[in-house]
Amino acid sequence: MSAPLLYHSPAPFALDLGGTLPGVDIAYHTYGTLSEARDNVVWVCHALTANSDVADWWPHTVVPGGFLDPSRWYVVCANIIGSCYGSTGPMSVNPATRQPWYGDFPRLTMADIARAHALLADALGIGRIAALVGSSVGGFQAVEWAVADPARFGRLVLIATGASASPWTVAIDETQRMAIKADSTWGEPRPDAARDGLAAARAIGLLTYRGPEGYNATQRDPDGLPAGALRRPVTYQRHQGDKLVARFDAYSYVAILDAFDTHDVGRGRGGRSAALARLGMPVCVIGLSTDIIFTPAEMRALADALPHAEYHEIASPLGHDGFLVEHGRLNSIINRFFNLTSPAGANDRQ
Amino acid sequence: MSAPLLYHSPAPFALDLGGTLPGVDIAYHTYGTLSEARDNVVWVCHALTANSDVADWWPHTVVPGGFLDPSRWYVVCANIIGSCYGSTGPMSVNPATRQPWYGDFPRLTMADIARAHALLADALGIGRIAALVGSSVGGFQAVEWAVADPARFGRLVLIATGASASPWTVAIDETQRMAIKADSTWGEPRPDAARDGLAAARAIGLLTYRGPEGYNATQRDPDGLPAGALRRPVTYQRHQGDKLVARFDAYSYVAILDAFDTHDVGRGRGGRSAALARLGMPVCVIGLSTDIIFTPAEMRALADALPHAEYHEIASPLGHDGFLVEHGRLNSIINRFFNLTSPAGANDRQ
Repeated sequence: MSAPLLYHSPAPFALDLGGTLPGVDIAYHTYGTLSEARDNVVWVCHALTANSDVADWWPHTVVPGGFLDPSRWYVVCANIIGSCYGSTGPMSVNPATRQPWYGDFPRLTMADIARAHALLADALGIGRIAALVGSSVGGFQAVEWAVADPARFGRLVLIATGASASPWTVAIDETQRMAIKADSTWGEPRPDAARDGLAAARAIGLLTYRGPEGYNATQRDPDGLPAGALRRPVTYQRHQGDKLVARFDAYSYVAILDAFDTHDVGRGRGGRSAALARLGMPVCVIGLSTDIIFTPAEMRALADALPHAEYHEIASPLGHDGFLVEHGRLNSIINRFFNLTSPAGANDRQ
Repeated sequence: MSAPLLYHSPAPFALDLGGTLPGVDIAYHTYGTLSEARDNVVWVCHALTANSDVADWWPHTVVPGGFLDPSRWYVVCANIIGSCYGSTGPMSVNPATRQPWYGDFPRLTMADIARAHALLADALGIGRIAALVGSSVGGFQAVEWAVADPARFGRLVLIATGASASPWTVAIDETQRMAIKADSTWGEPRPDAARDGLAAARAIGLLTYRGPEGYNATQRDPDGLPAGALRRPVTYQRHQGDKLVARFDAYSYVAILDAFDTHDVGRGRGGRSAALARLGMPVCVIGLSTDIIFTPAEMRALADALPHAEYHEIASPLGHDGFLVEHGRLNSIINRFFNLTSPAGANDRQ
């Protein structure tokens, strides 16, 4: 990750579930140049533990010919509030105590997170956004922001995501919280509290990111391994846990899981169908054939609920993680979508 | 659970990975009456946290007309060693210390567990077993035992299971162990050590038992729930964790996870294909359409690897847990299989 830019908004930031943040920091990255007409902004919303450096976590996209080609687009990505990559979150200092918030950070909603994105966009002088792109829980932010302010966005790209947190995604998140809170150091006022629990939570996440096909395709041991031998999937799960613990903290992790669980674009808007009907812009919905978090059936249903969506399904053995890996297909699908001169027909399929 | 019968074998029981159990207790249930010809035995192998009381955990099967009809069959089920329902396991007293084994219980393999079943069968005077039935990791035991002693079994029923622990199932198990061991009370010499970790592990298990379709079909909240409200999948995960903690312990749980991870019928037998080729009896392989642990594709491949298997797929939204719930379809498929007068053709499909 390269160092992000930092925007500080000194104004109190009122939160949906009560409480106020006394000012907000928003860390962000930009790539390319804002055109004079200010018509080339592509805003990317990142997933759970990612940061604002899209070029770092989404390889082969912020490159010439990629769908985030910086010679064509002015690409912006903001670290979500609640995270630990520079934006205000549980590791920020609470001015009232002069200590980090840790577990006392106020609860966020998806709408809070989207509002912080809007705050940064306004501060950067960005009005209209040519395309808003969100993958995984980045898509939660994208669809929430787009429904809150549809006129702002020219196009929308929703990859492996949903218009609300499904019972299944909430169950996955709660299970991760249970693992974190089973670590008795949870609650201690230090950045490395609940490290073992966080490692287990990450391992849970990995199960859902990769799914049966992903593990069986990539973590197979050689035949004839002795019965007592350490298995490759075992070391893989531990390694993934260790890697996350080295770069993230349990308080930020829980804060953003909690926020993602509040996701429902239909809340206060007459239901999801009514909310999604507001999205009259062309939308490109992309599912992954083996994704067990946001299943192809759900992705198709999301496209069906949108007035002008096209649906694409990428055949990949890598489950949900395919969104990070299948850049070739993503570049091809989204470049084509960006180059359309007329809006796509309702639910065009390919 | 009704009280099991208990068989005690005083002879030392040597274990595959070294060490010896100083005698073995095996808790078991029987239903029905052994025929004079001793030709009506159906042996059932239970799954992870179940016990020997099949009539308790597999409703509508040990009933008149069910495939385990006790007026026709003599049904036997033994609690696996390593478990905590009466058979020797981590909660048993280690004669060397006069304390329970807890975390010091020696490591088991699937072959050890199958050998304990054979020990009980011999002690009960049961030679030939008309049908061996295993669902989920019960199927691990069934296929291991059948490959070790194929002449003993007339038929084999394998439901939602596999001939080896796949990378995916090992990753699921390791993730559960990580959650258990993140609980800092893991290792303490008491039966309720790592309770919170065990609850989280069970919640992980539930994710894989039910899968996306299962949760989305059964754990949906009413529309319009406030953003901060407790979600139904959250209380469900916690409730499932609490329920298991009230009836199981973390040491037994880890002991049997470890054993299941050793499962590979091909080990020491020239590979899985050669091992499965030993199973010349009619085999009924049953998969569940939404099972994400043992996917329909894997179940079909298992049937394909067997000389005389028929494959059936039960359409169910309940994921892997369908094997416990879809008793109507199971009774129909397995009764038909049991009533066949000639062996099924190779890989008959319906």
